[in-house]
Amino acid sequence: MRFLDIIEKKKNKEVLSDQEIQFFIDGVTDESIPDYQISALLMAIRLNGMDEHETAKLAEAMMHSGDVIDLSDIEGIKSDKHSTGGVGDKTSLALGAMVAACGLKLAKMSGRGLGHTGGTLDKLESIEGFNIALSEEEFKKQVSEIGLAIIGQTGDLVPADKKLYALRDVTGTVDSIPLIASSIMSKKLASGSDTILLDVKYGEGAFMHTVEDAKKLARAMISIGKKLGKNTMAMITDMNQPLGNTIGNALEVKEAIETVKGEGPKDFTELCLTAGEIMLMQANKASNKKEARAMLEEAIKSGKAYEKLEKMVIYQGGNVEQIRNTDLLPQAKYKTDLESKEEGYIENIHSMGLGIAAMKLGAGREKKEDEINYGVGLKMNAKKGDYVKKGHILCRVYHDEPLSDEWIEDFYKTFTYKDQKVDPIPIVEEILD
Amino acid sequence: MRFLDIIEKKKNKEVLSDQEIQFFIDGVTDESIPDYQISALLMAIRLNGMDEHETAKLAEAMMHSGDVIDLSDIEGIKSDKHSTGGVGDKTSLALGAMVAACGLKLAKMSGRGLGHTGGTLDKLESIEGFNIALSEEEFKKQVSEIGLAIIGQTGDLVPADKKLYALRDVTGTVDSIPLIASSIMSKKLASGSDTILLDVKYGEGAFMHTVEDAKKLARAMISIGKKLGKNTMAMITDMNQPLGNTIGNALEVKEAIETVKGEGPKDFTELCLTAGEIMLMQANKASNKKEARAMLEEAIKSGKAYEKLEKMVIYQGGNVEQIRNTDLLPQAKYKTDLESKEEGYIENIHSMGLGIAAMKLGAGREKKEDEINYGVGLKMNAKKGDYVKKGHILCRVYHDEPLSDEWIEDFYKTFTYKDQKVDPIPIVEEILD
Repeated sequence: MRFLDIIEKKKNKEVLSDQEIQFFIDGVTDESIPDYQISALLMAIRLNGMDEHETAKLAEAMMHSGDVIDLSDIEGIKSDKHSTGGVGDKTSLALGAMVAACGLKLAKMSGRGLGHTGGTLDKLESIEGFNIALSEEEFKKQVSEIGLAIIGQTGDLVPADKKLYALRDVTGTVDSIPLIASSIMSKKLASGSDTILLDVKYGEGAFMHTVEDAKKLARAMISIGKKLGKNTMAMITDMNQPLGNTIGNALEVKEAIETVKGEGPKDFTELCLTAGEIMLMQANKASNKKEARAMLEEAIKSGKAYEKLEKMVIYQGGNVEQIRNTDLLPQAKYKTDLESKEEGYIENIHSMGLGIAAMKLGAGREKKEDEINYGVGLKMNAKKGDYVKKGHILCRVYHDEPLSDEWIEDFYKTFTYKDQKVDPIPIVEEILD
Repeated sequence: MRFLDIIEKKKNKEVLSDQEIQFFIDGVTDESIPDYQISALLMAIRLNGMDEHETAKLAEAMMHSGDVIDLSDIEGIKSDKHSTGGVGDKTSLALGAMVAACGLKLAKMSGRGLGHTGGTLDKLESIEGFNIALSEEEFKKQVSEIGLAIIGQTGDLVPADKKLYALRDVTGTVDSIPLIASSIMSKKLASGSDTILLDVKYGEGAFMHTVEDAKKLARAMISIGKKLGKNTMAMITDMNQPLGNTIGNALEVKEAIETVKGEGPKDFTELCLTAGEIMLMQANKASNKKEARAMLEEAIKSGKAYEKLEKMVIYQGGNVEQIRNTDLLPQAKYKTDLESKEEGYIENIHSMGLGIAAMKLGAGREKKEDEINYGVGLKMNAKKGDYVKKGHILCRVYHDEPLSDEWIEDFYKTFTYKDQKVDPIPIVEEILD
């Protein structure tokens, strides 16, 4: 087999065979195919696409390019969830505690943030001592015992994806549905859980800008999961404004704690409950939505969900006092309230702009090697559709350096106003299976 | 400027600006852009195209990536011609002598053959001592004095093309009209002549398989030439059977000599006369076709065309005795006549198959480093449309090794027969300007 022939086929819009896709991923993994040939194929895939079968085969070949975690030692159905990333997305923290309190086994490997989107690991590391680098044994033991662990990637999972992603990033081939779907799903599949819930975000702050594109990506991932025998579902959720009220690591941990206690923002709580319903049904813990929601609400009300969060922090070496009293979490030096300069219905809150604003405060990374400042961030005091008067506080900014005029100007640009009422958008647009 | 943004633009079917194309070619030339990014852009260009302006700018930027030959020392209009390559294409040898005899200044840089197509330099080197490596000064002096020189590339012409071609060859991006057109034209433009005639071949043995594709390529090249102020014309010519009767280096030199003496095959003579007409008009040596053809016919009849060929060989150090008596040119050890096994009208003679058959005898190169055997080749004794009986000699094979059964079998596969008359195809399909 010659790699050039594989490039030619995809260039001519032909379907690649399983053997050809395997040859491609083998060659990426053992570095026998030069980068300039890989990038030519990536661009051909970006422009000419891949069908469902090709995409599933690509994910499968990538999954097997490195270690595959075996979770069979853990009793029962193991659940996993994945978000395509957004602004203010602290879902894994709150949702994980809620579903674990309902008896689920959530064995979750998470990532770090880059650019305008945050990462679950960074949020957890705002808790002093929290260890995201468990061994595979420790990870499984913790999931067995308390039903919940969130860690960084263990072992050498999907090395082909690391290599391909690095190339995609510099060759304009990131925004390809088959490539995104196979990248995400190969990692989920290698992580070894039985059920997968995908939170595919759409909107200005998300990777997929429209509901339609988000659905396409969701369908591609569901198709991969199903072809490889995993119960896979997806929810299409709104990222046209930040999720919940906070953006920033310690601020989001605090909001997640409030949410598992039943005191969280409405949109974020609703997202967690909907996700929890699906996950409980996927794991046969509930037979319908209503039953699942009752279980989740009981877990919140009874304090069991909060207890799970405490337990996870204790198991992973974090300072649990910071969870019990969130004033002990990292704090920013300054708090500045920014007031609305206009009156009207809030038409749009550009979450990408706010994500970048938070990143510039130090809450996120512009480059991979940047350090995170855990205390800084934003706490929104207005959501899309709210009617605000001049002087209404839009946001409290938590910062360590004085705010520059440019930063403040960019902040105000993220809000647009309207005279007429603005219809609210549901946080969960659709559920796909 | 970031190269990634240029890739993104072309991926999104946007038009690249002059500055972006210049940045691309500068980065290719100084090797500041990594190969994997270049190949991603090449694939995006292959799949999303380039408009006329982009293609002309690309050719111009490539032309200036290295030396540009200055032919202004040579008096009068300097002519150039270029063939996209075919089987049995010895046009430059015969045509060069004919037009030089009519007063033209042909300063031609040629290439070597690879695969099923031969190269003019290899044909010339079948003449003992023939030197294709003249200095720029020697080259200009010869063109000034006798009106004709055919050499290999002098100086560091279009280094960006060398680099791009090497990458295109291994990334499935050879067959892109903007990339082919800019590659050919950048070299023609850097060669410094005033007028350019393009011989764009179509058919099974040519790079462009259909008349339509050949026209597209011709139009792209004419557009580049015109935008850069060169009188550029093209002829679309048939490569659905070998050109003339011979394939192989010394055999083709002999046929070219016969043709300048007026004793050449009909199709090849017609091609040379048509090309000569265009070139004489481009250089204002004739005001119309009729006048031009009369001049060319007179050059042949008077022996002046043949004299030019002799002169070129003498000037370039070749053994002129081999021209005067072509029996002195390299000879193959064996001659084998292959007879028709069928009766009927010859419907097709697959020129690519015959090109490969000649290559396997040693007349061409499978790999760049292969040595050429100058004496071997094929002399056809049947053309498309001929009615042949069983036993009619189709071809005389000149070879140094015994012919294998496989070779003979492949040879016969290049002929197909028909009961009905086969309409002849004109050698020159169309002239474009």
